[in-house]
Amino acid sequence: MKAGIETIPKGTVTSPEGFFAGATSAGINEKARDKPDLGVLFSEAPCVAAGVFTTNRIKAAPVVLSQQRLKRGKAGAVVVNSGCANACTGERGRGDAAKTAELTAKGIGISPEEVLVASTGVIGLPLPMKRITPAMEQVILSRDGGHELARAMMTTDTFAKETAVRVRVGKGEFTIGGVAKGSGMIHPDLATLLCFLTTDAAVEKGFLKEALKKAVDVSFSMISIDGDTSPNDMVLLMANGLAGNVPADAFEQALEQVCTYLAKSVAADGEGATRLIELTIRGARSLAEARLAARTIVSSSLVKAAVHGADPNWGRIMAALGRSGVEVEEARTDLYIGDMALVKAGRALPFNKRGAVRLLEKREVAIRLDLNLGSASATAWGCDLSPEYVTINSQYMT
Amino acid sequence: MKAGIETIPKGTVTSPEGFFAGATSAGINEKARDKPDLGVLFSEAPCVAAGVFTTNRIKAAPVVLSQQRLKRGKAGAVVVNSGCANACTGERGRGDAAKTAELTAKGIGISPEEVLVASTGVIGLPLPMKRITPAMEQVILSRDGGHELARAMMTTDTFAKETAVRVRVGKGEFTIGGVAKGSGMIHPDLATLLCFLTTDAAVEKGFLKEALKKAVDVSFSMISIDGDTSPNDMVLLMANGLAGNVPADAFEQALEQVCTYLAKSVAADGEGATRLIELTIRGARSLAEARLAARTIVSSSLVKAAVHGADPNWGRIMAALGRSGVEVEEARTDLYIGDMALVKAGRALPFNKRGAVRLLEKREVAIRLDLNLGSASATAWGCDLSPEYVTINSQYMT
Repeated sequence: MKAGIETIPKGTVTSPEGFFAGATSAGINEKARDKPDLGVLFSEAPCVAAGVFTTNRIKAAPVVLSQQRLKRGKAGAVVVNSGCANACTGERGRGDAAKTAELTAKGIGISPEEVLVASTGVIGLPLPMKRITPAMEQVILSRDGGHELARAMMTTDTFAKETAVRVRVGKGEFTIGGVAKGSGMIHPDLATLLCFLTTDAAVEKGFLKEALKKAVDVSFSMISIDGDTSPNDMVLLMANGLAGNVPADAFEQALEQVCTYLAKSVAADGEGATRLIELTIRGARSLAEARLAARTIVSSSLVKAAVHGADPNWGRIMAALGRSGVEVEEARTDLYIGDMALVKAGRALPFNKRGAVRLLEKREVAIRLDLNLGSASATAWGCDLSPEYVTINSQYMT
Repeated sequence: MKAGIETIPKGTVTSPEGFFAGATSAGINEKARDKPDLGVLFSEAPCVAAGVFTTNRIKAAPVVLSQQRLKRGKAGAVVVNSGCANACTGERGRGDAAKTAELTAKGIGISPEEVLVASTGVIGLPLPMKRITPAMEQVILSRDGGHELARAMMTTDTFAKETAVRVRVGKGEFTIGGVAKGSGMIHPDLATLLCFLTTDAAVEKGFLKEALKKAVDVSFSMISIDGDTSPNDMVLLMANGLAGNVPADAFEQALEQVCTYLAKSVAADGEGATRLIELTIRGARSLAEARLAARTIVSSSLVKAAVHGADPNWGRIMAALGRSGVEVEEARTDLYIGDMALVKAGRALPFNKRGAVRLLEKREVAIRLDLNLGSASATAWGCDLSPEYVTINSQYMT
């Protein structure tokens, strides 16, 4: 059964009952002193919580701390900063992450153990605690503060990513909201991606963890911007129960919708990106192969550069499919851009080149491959590769 | 024992005794009608031969044909074209590859079975046989024709890649020569890479195959330009025996030297590249892990973009190491750019930023990581990522 899921206009992470947020400019990045860069998310009621974290072997101090604290499956607040990743910072970094949590806990009157920490920005620099400590007192939490939080998380993001959905179930309703940041170092199995999700639904902590993993699998794990992952990635979900019990399937559907919306927003706002690429694989032998093929093709620099130039060079899509490692029979493969078939049963079709160019010039470019070998399908999202991506990333630190 | 290996000035694939080559302009790519694009390599004495081919599941017609013909371990000639990959061309493509071999065989008076075929260029277009057929008669083979062959193979390459070495052993000597083309779709486990190697050494065919595999493992399999591989990649080695028997170790050393030189030339001439990156891993637990880490880091878009901007953003190198999947202990890892230590035992060292920028501005940038976990080491080569790479690849076909 499809739940009645409705997107809330201007919805954000504080749309669910009982969540508060706020942010301020601590001046963490010396080059952007006035940008909001320090934010707090807080639930007035205690939450069950779950998280998904980077698979990178180099883990930032806030990741190590938050993973440890989430073992109990509970949380009351999240503190996040941009401008400094607090990664590759050793003992000092671990101390700074704990200190940030402590300052947050003190400000809102909860135990430091209930505070999760997230950071994003340059790797290898220490957190400037002497700027963070006084700034923390300037953070004012409000029911509408999700918008400020979303902006405080941004680094090279060009727009804030936030959404919320309301789900009517029987006589009641519950809400799920979220904020995310992305931009570079974005690749399957997370990314320089921070996402905080909230809900007022009452859910058991084992279910929460499972539902989060399922939703991340089809959303944040299916986007790629540049093939790199970061030591800082995390997706956190907090449920404070204020809206009471909810049906499991409605919760899962709504959570997937929120995660997919935020993941696509992150992909569309990749550094230097001008287009969102939606890559669908059909007819794969297994779900694992469908996912692998979709993620490989959407990550190909050559495919991404061709989309940037609206160049219908479909051979690169076939080549990326071929190197993905999944079972492919060239003579069975169909390839579409939008609704236009370019290859059928492995044979190049004569196609209207100007029409194909027009399809590739859209803000959202849909590419579909049918392997005709089985019944599994998967969708991945990415963006085009532009000269601006290189310019941004060749001058990030200098 | 190190063999006395001497690089031959202006050496090329026809430097070994008994090899002839030539090329012409067939006008295969309509946008570059006058560029040499069709070449032939021929040995007057019969050769034992071996090849290494693309791991891409989508294999171009010439790859399928050459792989099949090399099963006997013999070859007499190679015909190569640029401007059209003859990939994703189905039955017609297979017929065209065979026809090209037949025309070549007829021209030089050998059996079509002895002719190997290689192609590079746009995927998905058929070979223009009506231009290739008459052009084949214009190819004039000469002892000095390796240079022409090297140019005929080029696509977006900016310089021809060719070399030869002479090895003195006892009273005699033997020669190994080679030509290669690269530029885009270059990644470990081959690349849009064609390489033809020749020698006048007399070697047994099983040994030839093994020696080629060993040399490719540390050279062509250790370069990356953009993470993509193509359906057309091949490295071929032909030995005509005219110089008699040679010591196995001297042959292996010389072959590795030729392959490494050509592989580094391909990496340095990556599309849009301005710098060669040499990435060395030391102290890994195993050779497999050392190779994987080196290849992963040298393939990272973010590392490549930072090198392009001479930005000493070493956190990206650590992040790429962390996602490579190899065992890493942050607190044991050392990182160097050139001879300058930036990280020791996982701790960021204060470093001279201007000095680091100067090291990154060199034509060849050396980056070294010591994992301090074992004794295995490996080196990989790549290039920086420039806005020009994107420009070249967004307009390849249109």
